Amino acid sequence: MKNKLNGKWVTEVFKDTALSFKLKNKLYSKKSKYQLIEIYQTEKHGNLMALDGCFMVSEKEEFVYHEMLTHIPLFTHPFPENVLIIGGGDGGTAREVLKHKTVKNVDFVEIDEEVYNVSKKYFKNLTKGLEADKRLKFLFGDGIKFVKETENKYDIVLVDSTDPSDISGGLFSFEFFQDVYNILKNDGIMVMQSESPFYDGKIVSIVQDKLKKIFKYVNLYLAFIPIYPSGCWSFSLASKKYDPRTIRNKKSKINNLKYYNFEIHKAAFSLPQFAMDLTK
Amino acid sequence: MKNKLNGKWVTEVFKDTALSFKLKNKLYSKKSKYQLIEIYQTEKHGNLMALDGCFMVSEKEEFVYHEMLTHIPLFTHPFPENVLIIGGGDGGTAREVLKHKTVKNVDFVEIDEEVYNVSKKYFKNLTKGLEADKRLKFLFGDGIKFVKETENKYDIVLVDSTDPSDISGGLFSFEFFQDVYNILKNDGIMVMQSESPFYDGKIVSIVQDKLKKIFKYVNLYLAFIPIYPSGCWSFSLASKKYDPRTIRNKKSKINNLKYYNFEIHKAAFSLPQFAMDLTK
Repeated sequence: MKNKLNGKWVTEVFKDTALSFKLKNKLYSKKSKYQLIEIYQTEKHGNLMALDGCFMVSEKEEFVYHEMLTHIPLFTHPFPENVLIIGGGDGGTAREVLKHKTVKNVDFVEIDEEVYNVSKKYFKNLTKGLEADKRLKFLFGDGIKFVKETENKYDIVLVDSTDPSDISGGLFSFEFFQDVYNILKNDGIMVMQSESPFYDGKIVSIVQDKLKKIFKYVNLYLAFIPIYPSGCWSFSLASKKYDPRTIRNKKSKINNLKYYNFEIHKAAFSLPQFAMDLTK
Repeated sequence: MKNKLNGKWVTEVFKDTALSFKLKNKLYSKKSKYQLIEIYQTEKHGNLMALDGCFMVSEKEEFVYHEMLTHIPLFTHPFPENVLIIGGGDGGTAREVLKHKTVKNVDFVEIDEEVYNVSKKYFKNLTKGLEADKRLKFLFGDGIKFVKETENKYDIVLVDSTDPSDISGGLFSFEFFQDVYNILKNDGIMVMQSESPFYDGKIVSIVQDKLKKIFKYVNLYLAFIPIYPSGCWSFSLASKKYDPRTIRNKKSKINNLKYYNFEIHKAAFSLPQFAMDLTK
């Protein structure tokens, strides 16, 4: 039994589980105004970002999270033009949104500008081309405040947050969901990450319950994300008009995606029984 | 950053990744004729079995693997009566097979009788009732030899093996697949675990290639298994007559399953793009 981690490893402890990656080097560590940002160079997973000790993004696996957060709602909506991203400071979600040719405007509201600056240096595949794309507006600031005050109306709101914490906890509140509802157009869609149904089933249930009090369609969908606890991650989608199991936007097909395709779009909403039970 | 594992943990190192569970006690450790068998009492995942250092079964998560290995083929087949299990010494696969009322005979060929004996003591939920069920025949021995020599014919063959190793490597060979083909009835189905598409994509491809040379239908399907590397696990299904995306056996619906349902049966075959590419 290889019971010990010999040599250099980086480990995230989550409750009673821990996940480790073999390390080449630690590249960066700095406490921003909001959180501890760390960048590790792993043996085989590329660079890895941790925020307050939680793995957020690895170069090798980031495609799953970013494609699945983005393309499910953007292919559900028949003609997404105006998109709001809350969080997502690493840039990966903005990169995926901008692949949609229908999109005319993306407001990118990340509270911690340092996350974006660090990502520009260490995650070039997530950030390259973003600043050159005039459709993208960098609006660093508090997303909770932004949704309360903006007069813009959006087709899609993507909430790309960390786990619920002091700074992100408000992104899981009923009041925030109502504010998002109010800034969505009459056929708008919101998606947020909503933790692991294996290890955080209560959060899944609470988020689903709150959203169902506000939106017509509320669905949970899942994706395989090896760097997050349990490897099984959930997204909660709330929609005013469109059932997300129907793809309305097939014409804007995007080539060279690594996770999302039209089959997985539908299949991701078919839940294992225990996860389905969390949504009832 | 909680970078160190303080206190007692049990860790599986898999290539450049490692997964750990917080430990209460080590309950058992003994080298059988074939492998090192260890049982750990974890904090929150119940008892955990490791074979040669690889996590095989935890009480909390075992339902995923056993339900998905079993019910996909047994609900694909319209009337499964005669089933062969190769490996599966912990008993969980036999438990699931016996939930099907159509099943009349189950031949259970595990090479390492010690695994079953240990499971009887430490995994009572996997083994209880098995010996009382007269449909189940315990035939401890070498599965590779068994499929070569038996004159029985089966509706379903389930290969519930460890990762490819000295003792299980033969279960991934072309010759073994041919022998399984030969002992299946004209509408028989075989399923085997075929590793992680994230971390062992080559094995997935090789298994699929070999099976396609022999069987009419060969499909890959996936399930979320938090205790296996990457959390994403694949099963390879090979079928002589029935396309496994159609459920032919709806009448034998089983209550109280925790993972499998008829929606997930179909959805599990819809693959993320990178996994679909491994099957081409």
